[in-house]
Order: sequence, then C-alpha cells, then structure tokens
Amino acid sequence: MAEIFRMRLILTAAVIVLGAATAPSMVEGRIRHYKWEVRYEFKSPDCFKKLAITINGATPGPTIVADQGDTVVVELKNSLLTENVAIHWHGIRQIGTPWMDGTEGVTQCPILPGQTFVYKFVVDRPGTYLYHAHYGMQREAGLYGSIRVSLPEGQSEPFAYDYDRSIILTDWYHKSTYEQAAGLSSIPFVWVGEPQSILIQGKGRFDCTTPGIESGRCNATNPECVPYALTVVPGKTYRLRVGSLTALAALSLEIEGHNMTVVESDGHYVEPFVVKNLFIYSGETYSVLITANQNPSRNYWLSAKVVSRNSTTPNGLAVFNYYPNHPRRSPPTAPPAGPRWDDVAARESQSAAVKSHRGYIHTPPQKSDRVITMLNTQNRQHGRVRWSVNNVTYNLPHTPYLIAYKHNLTGAFDQTPPPEGYDEASYDIYSVAKNVNATASDGAYRLKFNTTVDIILQNANTMNVNNSESHPWHLHGHDFWVLAHGAGKFNWSRDAGKFNLVDPIMKNTVVVHPFGWTALRFRADNPGVWAFHCHIESHFYMGMGVVFEEGVERLGNLPKSIMGCVAH
Amino acid sequence: MAEIFRMRLILTAAVIVLGAATAPSMVEGRIRHYKWEVRYEFKSPDCFKKLAITINGATPGPTIVADQGDTVVVELKNSLLTENVAIHWHGIRQIGTPWMDGTEGVTQCPILPGQTFVYKFVVDRPGTYLYHAHYGMQREAGLYGSIRVSLPEGQSEPFAYDYDRSIILTDWYHKSTYEQAAGLSSIPFVWVGEPQSILIQGKGRFDCTTPGIESGRCNATNPECVPYALTVVPGKTYRLRVGSLTALAALSLEIEGHNMTVVESDGHYVEPFVVKNLFIYSGETYSVLITANQNPSRNYWLSAKVVSRNSTTPNGLAVFNYYPNHPRRSPPTAPPAGPRWDDVAARESQSAAVKSHRGYIHTPPQKSDRVITMLNTQNRQHGRVRWSVNNVTYNLPHTPYLIAYKHNLTGAFDQTPPPEGYDEASYDIYSVAKNVNATASDGAYRLKFNTTVDIILQNANTMNVNNSESHPWHLHGHDFWVLAHGAGKFNWSRDAGKFNLVDPIMKNTVVVHPFGWTALRFRADNPGVWAFHCHIESHFYMGMGVVFEEGVERLGNLPKSIMGCVAH
Repeated sequence: MAEIFRMRLILTAAVIVLGAATAPSMVEGRIRHYKWEVRYEFKSPDCFKKLAITINGATPGPTIVADQGDTVVVELKNSLLTENVAIHWHGIRQIGTPWMDGTEGVTQCPILPGQTFVYKFVVDRPGTYLYHAHYGMQREAGLYGSIRVSLPEGQSEPFAYDYDRSIILTDWYHKSTYEQAAGLSSIPFVWVGEPQSILIQGKGRFDCTTPGIESGRCNATNPECVPYALTVVPGKTYRLRVGSLTALAALSLEIEGHNMTVVESDGHYVEPFVVKNLFIYSGETYSVLITANQNPSRNYWLSAKVVSRNSTTPNGLAVFNYYPNHPRRSPPTAPPAGPRWDDVAARESQSAAVKSHRGYIHTPPQKSDRVITMLNTQNRQHGRVRWSVNNVTYNLPHTPYLIAYKHNLTGAFDQTPPPEGYDEASYDIYSVAKNVNATASDGAYRLKFNTTVDIILQNANTMNVNNSESHPWHLHGHDFWVLAHGAGKFNWSRDAGKFNLVDPIMKNTVVVHPFGWTALRFRADNPGVWAFHCHIESHFYMGMGVVFEEGVERLGNLPKSIMGCVAH
Repeated sequence: MAEIFRMRLILTAAVIVLGAATAPSMVEGRIRHYKWEVRYEFKSPDCFKKLAITINGATPGPTIVADQGDTVVVELKNSLLTENVAIHWHGIRQIGTPWMDGTEGVTQCPILPGQTFVYKFVVDRPGTYLYHAHYGMQREAGLYGSIRVSLPEGQSEPFAYDYDRSIILTDWYHKSTYEQAAGLSSIPFVWVGEPQSILIQGKGRFDCTTPGIESGRCNATNPECVPYALTVVPGKTYRLRVGSLTALAALSLEIEGHNMTVVESDGHYVEPFVVKNLFIYSGETYSVLITANQNPSRNYWLSAKVVSRNSTTPNGLAVFNYYPNHPRRSPPTAPPAGPRWDDVAARESQSAAVKSHRGYIHTPPQKSDRVITMLNTQNRQHGRVRWSVNNVTYNLPHTPYLIAYKHNLTGAFDQTPPPEGYDEASYDIYSVAKNVNATASDGAYRLKFNTTVDIILQNANTMNVNNSESHPWHLHGHDFWVLAHGAGKFNWSRDAGKFNLVDPIMKNTVVVHPFGWTALRFRADNPGVWAFHCHIESHFYMGMGVVFEEGVERLGNLPKSIMGCVAH
C-alpha cells in the first residue's frame, strides 16, 4: 500500500509539472472539451452495493477544470436504458446561453436514451461550482461533480495557499430514487427516512452488520469504500474547496484539531473568518484554508455531521492524512463530536459572518423595484404531502418554459403568476397551519428586465408541532446579495433596516433557518427562465420551487437541440 | 369471505346481463376507448413488496375487450418520473397502421414523461392477444395485459363453452429491471438467476421466511398475494384463454384432475387435441376448454411449472375453485408434480400437435421466394455476454427504422443487411462455438413486398457445454405458418419434405426447441418495419433479434406523434 501511495504522489507531481509546462499556452477563451457517457453501474460507495448513475463509470463524475473566460463543452451521451437525463451547471450563470442551464422542464427538454447533447457555455467567473442532474431525482443517484474555475495566469487571489483540493459532500440512501419518489407520492406518505451514509468525495462507510439488510449487498472489505484521505504535507496551507450536494442533510464539516479560514463561497471572495466547523447546506460551496500545523506523526479525522435534523445518520468520516503517514491509518483519537444538531444559533452566527471580501465588494442596488415574500410551508394537496411557497405547491411542466415563452405556447403552463406574498398579519409561523391544504400551480413570476427584486424567504412550522426545517434556496442564472438573516417573522418596517447594503456576500444558494427569514436581492438582468428552489431533492420534488422569467424577448432563436419534447 | 364471494358472483351475472342488453347496439367498427395512466406503484404480487409499473394503478393492466372489426383507442399518459414508455399490441398485425405497433426504436419514438400518446388500431381478427411494454425491460416490471377479441354478434366459433376466462402467466423477479439490465451489461456478466415466483394473473406466493431478504419487504398476510382463484360452476365448460409473458420461463400449465382441449392459439383455431398439461412459451396464447366434471366438493390446483430450465423457481399455484367451495380453500391434495423439466420430447410432441382447425385452414404458399436461416447462439461481444443470429448480435437503434426508411435517414443504422445464414457445413450445433465472439449490427433485412419468406430457426449449443435453451420467437406485423419443428441440424434437402403445407397452424410466436430447428413461412405483405425476436426479455436485450422492412414506400405520411426523438 505504501508503494501505491508513493506512486500516487509521484504521479500527482508529474501532473503538476505537466500543468505548469502547458500553462504558458493557455489563453483566455480556451475550449475545455469533455466527452461523457451516462449510465448505471453497481457501486459500493459506503460498502453497500447499489445502482448509481455514473459518468464515464464514476461517481462523483470528472472534475471540470477551467480558467476564467474558458468555454466548457460537454458532449453528453445518455446511455441509460429507458431514462432521460439533463445536467445543470450549478453556479454558472449562463449569461447569453440560458438554454444551457440544464434544467429539465425549465430550460430544455430531457436528453433521450441514445442521444448525445452538447452543453456549451462560458465560465465567466473564477470560483468553486458544481454540476449535477436536474431531472427527477437523478442527482441523488450519483450524477454530480465539481467545477473548478481558476483565475487566468498572472492574476492572484486575495489569499495564499500551497495546494488546491476539492471535495463534495453528499448523503446516500440505499433505496433507489424510484422507490423514494414513489413513496413521496404515495397516500399515505412513505418517507425514506434519514440517509444511510454521508459520503465525502463519494466515499462513506455503512455498517454491514446492520440487521435486516439483504444478504450479499454489503461488503465491508470492498476497496470502493475505503475512506477518502486528504493527504497534506506538514507545514503547507491547503485551499479546500467544499461543495455540498446532499439530498437532505445540512452538514457541519470539521477537521480535528485544525481551524479553517473561510475565504470563498459560491464563487465570491469572503472577508476571511476562522471557524472550527463549517456549516454547509446543499447547493453551497466554500473554500477554506487549512494549514497542516499540527503534530505530523499522526492522522486526523475529517468529519461531516448532520445538523438541523435529529438524524440517525452516522457522521461521515475521512482521513486528514499527514504525509508520510499511511492514508488508511486511523487517527488515534475519537472523531470530533461536532456541534449539537439543534444549535440554530451557531448556524445563524455563521450565516451572519459571511460577508464580501472588502477588496471585492459588489455594492448592491440600494433599493428594490419589487418585493416577493415566500412563505415556506409543508402542506397537503389532494391528500399528498407537499411543500409550498405561499401555499402554492409547484408542479414542473413538461414543456420547458423557455420554449413556451419564446414560441408563445400559452397552453403549456398556467399563465397566472403565483402570489407575491402571504397573509403576514394573521399567519402564525410558529404553529401548524390551520388549513394545511395547498393549491398546485406551474405558473411563473415574470420579472421586468433590469429591475431589482427582493425575495424574503419566510420559514414557518411544518405539519409537525414545534418543527421547522432548514431550506437552502438556490437561484439559477444569477448571484444574489444576501441582505440579512433573521429569526421569527420578517417585518418590513422593522427588519429592512437590518439589510446589509454595504458589503453583503453574493451567493447562488442560501439557507433560511428554522422559524427564521432570509432576505436577498438580485438584478433581473439575465434574459431567460430561471428556477429558484429548495435544493433538498425531495422538497423540490414535492413542490418547493418557483420560476422567474425575465427578458426572454431579448433572446435570439433557441437551439433546436433543446426542443425535442415539444410538438412540432 | 363467502359473502364477498357471493356478491362477486352476482356482480359477474349483472355484467353478463348488461353485456347481453347492450349487445344489439354493437355494430362492426365500434370504438373501444381506454384512458390509461402509467406509473410506478409499490406492489406485493407474491407478498414481496417492490415497485411495479402499473396502468391505472394495476398490474396486470385492464383487459381490452373488443369485437372483431372494432377500433381500439388507448390514450396513454406517461406518468413515470424520468422514464419513457411504449406499448406493443402483441398479435395485432397493425395492417395499415405500422406506426401503432408500439415497438420503441422500430416503429416509434418513446413516449416521454408527461406526454400522452394515442394508440389507435383495428382489431381485425377474433382471438386471444396480449399487450405489453416494448421498451427496455419494462414488460417484466409489470406493464402488460390481455386483449380479447370476440366474434361479431351472430357468428360462432367451432367449439362450445359456457364461460370465457383469461389468465396471463408471468415470472417475477425481486430485483428491479435496472439491476437486472446493469448486470446483463456488466463485465463480468451478472446473471439475475431464476425468477423468485411464477405469477398467475398477477398473483404468486414467495416464501417470506427465505433467509437473506431485506426486512420489511415481505408480508405473507398481505391480501395482494392471495392466490388467484378461477371459480367454476360444476358441469360447465370453460374457455380459458392463457397467455404467457414470462421474462424467461417456459411453462407447463396443469389443472389437477382435469384435461384441457386446445382450441385456439395466437388468434387461430386449432384442430382440437386433448392435453393433461399445456406447454406455453413467452409470447404465446392458447385457448383451452375445461369441463368442471370432477368431484365438486373440493377445489383443485392450477399449477404452472418451469420447464426447459433446471429452475429453482417454485411452481406457480392458483385455485381451480368449484363453486360454492370457498375460493381460498386449499385443495386436499399435493399440487401436481408436472412433467420433467428436461423432457424435450414431450414439448416437441405438443408443438407437432398444433395444427390449423380443419374448417379454418389458411393454405400456405407452396413455395417461398427467399430462405433466411437463423442460427441461434450465445456469444461474447467486447467481453459482454450476448445472444446472436448468425453470429451477429443485435443493437436496437434510437431512430426508429420506420421513420429512417420513410425519411431516408441512411445514417440512422447500418445499411448492410445481416447475413442470410451461417456456415451450415462446418458449424457444430452440439458444441460450444470454437470462436464465441460475435459482431454487432443494427442492420435490417429488406423483404421484397408481397414475397414469401421462409425462416429456419436453428438452435445450437450455448457457451455452456451440453446446453441449449428454448427460444420463443415472436414476429410483429404478421402471422406465420409453422411448417415444421425438428431435432438436430436442419438440412434443406432432407427436411423441407417434412414441411406441413396442408394444414399448418398460423401463429405469431413459436418456440425453437433445444438443439432443434423450426421452419416458418410468411408473406411480406404488410408495409412497415417489423421486429422478429426472441421473446425472452433478457435475450432480446442481449441482442437476440432482427428487423424486417417491407413495402415502406407504399406508406403515406407518418404520424408526427411517433417522431419526437428524431432531429428536426
């Protein structure tokens, strides 16, 4: 094993040298070309064998590595048997290419089995991004990966590090996404429960001695489920890019005995602050700096713990491996306990700490043209459990909005826009709603082009007493300013004064805390149709999302490749 | 329970009366309209809970009941989450409507989630037919049902009976079709093994105490897995229509203590013959007459046993229930043992016995214009296990042939036709091939319109020594004459003299026995493109099929509804 490890180090070194050698030939606007084939394969990421959707045989898929200004071309071949697919480039705004956002039902028709679809878009900002399936619940079947966009040669970031590493955190269910989806749509509701494992860069560890599992499914000695090891050289500083694509879990990431300095989130530089543990929600990315400044004779735990839910899922564990210790050598200590799952204040505190780096402030517009308040509730509709915005639960149509708007297919979805708010005066966010029934809609919000829009995400009680969940909301096609987070019910006259209009961070995903509110602002300046939804896979499936249209009339002809499902 | 049963009898009587009352208003060419929604639901047909593809919540789906000359209209809504669908009307020749055959990749593009496709076709002959998914391996996920076409009022059949009943036999796996398909495509090959249950009209019984199964999956008291009961009134004669849509198994059907008189197969009247057990292969239908002439104070077993494979699957059991005994009362005797699985002679004997009813002979053309010999072998291709015809393994393309031929899309598939035969002189059908490697193709046989074509299906050894399997071959768009079955290697000069050119049965599905051959003849007189394939789901998936084109130039414009997947 030590032999193999040494070989790996040498290979890594070779790649670095090669990278340096080719660097001078890189010019802005370079094409980064990828050929991907999507198919099912049996995988045992946590020792339990199940089908995963893979890219070129792997999950997570290949990391897209590019420089700012490059064009990424992904030739995606769907080799699934009967299932379509679509891939979203999470955090890439797709300016000028709204049809490449990869959101089935919003920006494109799905890609059929046997078809090859070519995604082509510019990565216009440096930073840490993600990609993942945006169709059905395929993301949590394993179809995801990282996008790392570097600054062009000669430009530097406002922080220093020796090495750059990426990990993605996910949670992992043993039941197929079909079973999960069928349960979510059942009457009575069948909830899949807490995930079986937390995966760190696609590696986890499920206890194969768990009673009741099917025989032959779990093999603790499978090399596929050797814990992920992040190897560090003593004394060096690492930029660790962390993305979360959990289906459900909010996580706290901790590296035993090491502080982390938060320096980037969702592609924007953060005014550095130090944490012992990093809270991260599905759809978010962070860069943290870690210096390998502890006793180098041992390894340390890298641990990801579920927070915000009283989860039965064991902490995900990886090895923070000080070279030259063996990467599989367990740390001599117990893994860190992590924060209490229900310590909302600690999470709110981190949310408040994330501000724009002082040298990179994008000052927000000082006022908005429109305010849409979005009450987040759990509901029933036709007897099924759903999630709603202002008591309207969202159904994704099958004619993509982008095509419907451009081609005036007014029958494709409800032309009535969803409500702009809720009954703030009388609604009690701390109680189960008196009437939990929601109506369903696939109507969209139409935003006047180049206007400034405020969204107030207002959390509330679920259908269980004294319960409110964390919802990470992700906006396609834009970054927004995070103006403020607050506890309780938002009140414009009282709370608008708390908006940070000086140095708010820009993000594409932000959490609304239990029983709290989050205010964000964005400019409707990217012609297209853009989803805005809770990034918890099952919540979006159950209707927790909306769609914004802006400036579609400014777009030229749509590519025919996105229109396969539209009658012609 | 007896109450419920009595109510059921009364209801049945009511339906019969209603049928009689409405009969006079039935005229030829009546429209039979069905609205179906396809979706996944949890089902426990053999007490083990798994996802099944259902129609309007049921598997098997609704029975299509029509009279000869009626037009069947099925509005099919695909409510699967990410999967497409297509349904084949098995045994319906689709004369003049080749685009309604429901064969994905051959006659239509698949139906996308959210879309509704309208199948519309005439049922031009009375008889017993089937329908089932023809996309991926969805058929064995539960998407199937019966089609019963009656003679118009006033016409009668050449046999008499009191009541008409239908059952479909299937085999049932607990692993999902995704897992099965992924295993079949894996290197090394992962074979799902023998089915867990045989289902009779969607009901079976798996032993929930079987070790190693996931806890919570199996519930022996689930009412869904109460055995199917065929209730009969003592002294009455029943027409039992039996169809097989097994994924794998060849079956022997037996009703304890009762003989069966075979009177129809695949929509053609059979010169009656009596059997103790009926051998039936996937894709076949038979009508048998059974008189309830045994001791009426007890019930009897209706048993379906796997033959042709040394299977571990327990016999499927239903109750042949003499009224007024309780339909759940077990027969006092042990279920019949059934024939030996490896008694090929008994199966060959039945094959030889099936001839056209003497009053309904369609005399075949006395000679053919073309002979295509099809060697059936198991092979490898690029390291994967495959099945082949003349050492060419078939890949289904994604642009349907019908569209490709009509619109001259010559790049859609290989324009070179597959071989007309194999090296008969040197090939040893009793040994594993010296070179098991196959080539792959999606080329089609083009048949001159209105010519007569002979197919010689030649079985051979698989990749295991001393092993040859039964393959039921199904032809779309036609019935063929079954000219002869034989053992060993077919030799034209010796065996053509054995062809029955007097009273051969016409069928759409026929078996080729282990190490044997089957000769069939058909007229290429139905403009369209038609699949001809082994009806074992995994064998077709692994390449055991071909496609015939005939007279496509005679067709008018294709409906746009079938063309969704073709670039435009």
